[in-house]
Amino acid sequence: MIEQQLIHKINTRTKPLGSLGKLETIALKIGKIQNTLTPELRNPCILVFAADHGIADAGVSPCPKEITHQMVLNFVNGGAGINVFTRQHGINLRVIDGGVDYDFPENCGVESCKLARGTNNMLHKPAMDMDLCRLAMEKGAEYVRREFENGCNVIGFGEMGIGNTSPASLLLHKFAGVSLADCVGRGAGLNPEGVERKYQILSEVAAKYDPQTPLETLATFGGIEIAMMVGGILEAKKNNMLILADGFIATSAFITAYEMQPDILDNTLFSHSSNEKGHVLMLKYLKGDPILQLDLRLGEGTGVALAYPIIQSSLIFLNEMASFETAAVTQVDK
Amino acid sequence: MIEQQLIHKINTRTKPLGSLGKLETIALKIGKIQNTLTPELRNPCILVFAADHGIADAGVSPCPKEITHQMVLNFVNGGAGINVFTRQHGINLRVIDGGVDYDFPENCGVESCKLARGTNNMLHKPAMDMDLCRLAMEKGAEYVRREFENGCNVIGFGEMGIGNTSPASLLLHKFAGVSLADCVGRGAGLNPEGVERKYQILSEVAAKYDPQTPLETLATFGGIEIAMMVGGILEAKKNNMLILADGFIATSAFITAYEMQPDILDNTLFSHSSNEKGHVLMLKYLKGDPILQLDLRLGEGTGVALAYPIIQSSLIFLNEMASFETAAVTQVDK
Repeated sequence: MIEQQLIHKINTRTKPLGSLGKLETIALKIGKIQNTLTPELRNPCILVFAADHGIADAGVSPCPKEITHQMVLNFVNGGAGINVFTRQHGINLRVIDGGVDYDFPENCGVESCKLARGTNNMLHKPAMDMDLCRLAMEKGAEYVRREFENGCNVIGFGEMGIGNTSPASLLLHKFAGVSLADCVGRGAGLNPEGVERKYQILSEVAAKYDPQTPLETLATFGGIEIAMMVGGILEAKKNNMLILADGFIATSAFITAYEMQPDILDNTLFSHSSNEKGHVLMLKYLKGDPILQLDLRLGEGTGVALAYPIIQSSLIFLNEMASFETAAVTQVDK
Repeated sequence: MIEQQLIHKINTRTKPLGSLGKLETIALKIGKIQNTLTPELRNPCILVFAADHGIADAGVSPCPKEITHQMVLNFVNGGAGINVFTRQHGINLRVIDGGVDYDFPENCGVESCKLARGTNNMLHKPAMDMDLCRLAMEKGAEYVRREFENGCNVIGFGEMGIGNTSPASLLLHKFAGVSLADCVGRGAGLNPEGVERKYQILSEVAAKYDPQTPLETLATFGGIEIAMMVGGILEAKKNNMLILADGFIATSAFITAYEMQPDILDNTLFSHSSNEKGHVLMLKYLKGDPILQLDLRLGEGTGVALAYPIIQSSLIFLNEMASFETAAVTQVDK
């Protein structure tokens, strides 16, 4: 019902039929979610979850682990990519320490929700036990609920965690059945030898465990920040929010949430197609049509922030463009 | 010199090397144009040139010619796509009647520069004589000069003119040596039979003339609004402005200007890759890397307006992100 009305509204704006391309698809999707001909985005927010990863000790990243906490401090000091882009677009930003191996000063701006000092090294034992994984999901959900209760109806997810392309690669491999070699990429900038080494390490990890459920898979191969995003995504769906996916790591949380509850996709937009090798396979698995293709591979939620004005444009055209009738323009396609 | 300094500045922002992808390329390009480490966009403006086309009488478009003036009135009344997107991003919009076959009321907001009541039907004689073509280029240049003198350093070009994918297809065919069949697309929404008919008509036109210079080619196959854009592009280059290309018709003006003066490309960004069939061939010919791929085919400068926040983001990251040193983040790639 609302779908037909939305399509009619889109098709009677003063433009050739279909000529706003993906903007029309986005407008239709948001209109359907909000069940209205005049959808709107309220109190947009990006939650950036940060945590460390035991697997980083195995040398899967070119970056030392200390960069996780350094970048979290950079976030709260306003100097990172996600800061400048969220400021540009008036998006609220929350930076949450879910499991960073560092003691942040009090009142520094980091929201403290430290559930552990990072995950276990998956070469030796599962990244998280089931209780930690469940708790991380619950805490992630709480942050989303709080935003929802403050009037937010559009939420994006970002992350920071040195080593976290490794869990994302493993989750893609396990859930989508993609060969591990196709899931392992350069991360923050590995050279070909580094990628090969990362692949060998992750092959060993992948062969070591045989989790049976999505939750168990997430606990075994995931990360605290990923589990928090998974819980957050499910909560956002529960509250019928528009949910925005970022790059490779954030999308691994969407894949996990999808395994648990496929209808999250009804509320999800994919902000961009990342330059990290496996991301395009994630998007394919989720049948996601990314808004931007800018060869980004930064994470932090930056793709969400950069795509946000395009999402706004889709509603602005729907809500503000004249119709053929009011503008007295001849309508050709009916 | 400035290039090396810009690259150093880009590479010392707190992010993995190259991880902002196309934003980095854009930031570098604008920094080079403005010869500064802190480039900025001032008084952005989109000029929309409108004109009618004699070839429309041959039935190359699914739209009646009256839609040209109806849409121009829609522009000045604020109801079209270009209106809502320029408002969104604080871009100045000027709507110029270069050759619409309609008498607009005075003071209706349309800038009057009517050089003719449309072009000739190319099936019978060249679209413009050389004098009209030169005059259109001069007038287009004047509008750009006025914006430049008002402090504008970034200018986009849009257009309105029923039938104008036909001149754009012919210019692509003649300048880039692409087979005409690959240059002819659906325009505002032709069905396959309509596209075939358009192709037959344009084949006849293409075979009828043999212009020798870029100017003569523009006069023979172009349009008044296209010639105005060509003059405007050359003037913008003269003033070292950042120049933003829109879709298929606007880009045909960039191809023409490129034939006259190849270094316009040093100042040009391509806002998007359009869904009109030949546009991707234009971009290929100009070695243009489009910012957006949203399956747009609306024209009016809408692609420029939609890409504008991404261009802003590229300067915002360059100017506002912290460096590894100031943020005390370990730099891995040096």
